[in-house]
Amino acid sequence: MSGYFTEDIPADELTRQIEVARSIGDSARRLVAATVVTDVAEEEVEEARRLIDAATAILDRRHIDSSFGFRFNSDGRERNWGNAVEGIRNAIAPPAEFIVDGDRVWAEFVLGPQYEGPGGLVHGGVIALVLDQVLGRAAVAAGSPGMTGTLTVRYRQGTALGPVRVEAWFERAEGRKGFAKGTLSTAAGVCAEGEGIFIMPRKVHGAGPDGRSGIGDA
Amino acid sequence: MSGYFTEDIPADELTRQIEVARSIGDSARRLVAATVVTDVAEEEVEEARRLIDAATAILDRRHIDSSFGFRFNSDGRERNWGNAVEGIRNAIAPPAEFIVDGDRVWAEFVLGPQYEGPGGLVHGGVIALVLDQVLGRAAVAAGSPGMTGTLTVRYRQGTALGPVRVEAWFERAEGRKGFAKGTLSTAAGVCAEGEGIFIMPRKVHGAGPDGRSGIGDA
Repeated sequence: MSGYFTEDIPADELTRQIEVARSIGDSARRLVAATVVTDVAEEEVEEARRLIDAATAILDRRHIDSSFGFRFNSDGRERNWGNAVEGIRNAIAPPAEFIVDGDRVWAEFVLGPQYEGPGGLVHGGVIALVLDQVLGRAAVAAGSPGMTGTLTVRYRQGTALGPVRVEAWFERAEGRKGFAKGTLSTAAGVCAEGEGIFIMPRKVHGAGPDGRSGIGDA
Repeated sequence: MSGYFTEDIPADELTRQIEVARSIGDSARRLVAATVVTDVAEEEVEEARRLIDAATAILDRRHIDSSFGFRFNSDGRERNWGNAVEGIRNAIAPPAEFIVDGDRVWAEFVLGPQYEGPGGLVHGGVIALVLDQVLGRAAVAAGSPGMTGTLTVRYRQGTALGPVRVEAWFERAEGRKGFAKGTLSTAAGVCAEGEGIFIMPRKVHGAGPDGRSGIGDA
């Protein structure tokens, strides 16, 4: 299956590469937020645009591939830097850093102005995006990774832009299907509930080391 | 309700502002994609990072607000430049430009490497994000705007990164609830089907001009 790679980067070197990736990813993230809410004059916007284009020209000199893919390292660590929710080098991702805690998987992060839907509130689709990822991670943690088959999100109240917590747990497996449930909360309580059915495609079963397929980040 | 504004920008001036917004948004978009797939040396990444930070410092000199909000202009046009799917100044947004065509709403756009989930494929949550928006737009077009109450997405096959088409139509209204359905397709056919229930909050009903609430971008 294309987009999956096994690599053998020395542990120290990988740790350093992660720092560099996080640094450029965080810079791009701050830029995206600033672009949304800026109110500077047109000449200043133009000045900023030229700097951005110069940065892009440097980064465009050489590409890893048409997409980052899912990369497993020999020391057991994953590099999924392009992932739209977790990717440290992807400015679209908050990024979420998931913690596996018993039978729960959770993450806390801030959703800034670039995640807006209704005025002042997090976009309902962004809530679905981060719930899909935490539900998939709960399926992976329970040993039942898969591509999303069905995702259902029920919105209980508007979610203010700012700090959020997502949390999920695995409910049960039925053959190649895994069922997970989860929530997105803020200080105001639970804002949305999600349910995901994850299906492991037969052809990618066991694609990663230790029998992991790496899917579940569907 | 906070985050909603009525403005009176002259039509010509607004047209020019839209060009500037699109220009900086597109630059930031290209940067985000380049950041994900770059394979340049660490010194070059550092050089790019300094340029990005310089651009951010310029844009950060003055902010419109903590988020962009939903802005109605006196000539009937909307500015929702911060929207996570449509916002022309939001690098997280593809951005989708929706066409209302009879009882259908559709958009075609490209999902690049920054929308990856499984290796080489569009993130299932990104599919939910763009479906939520087109479903909400179909509800708006049918005169039944609302915040998303429930979103259900059924994934039929993996979606390759690249050009996609989303399309939605309104099914029926029941009191303050509107039901919409839609699809996300590629050249390979329908990849996902979505269904949304949109609920108009009583307190924002009629917040915009001409009785539009502006919600439906939930």
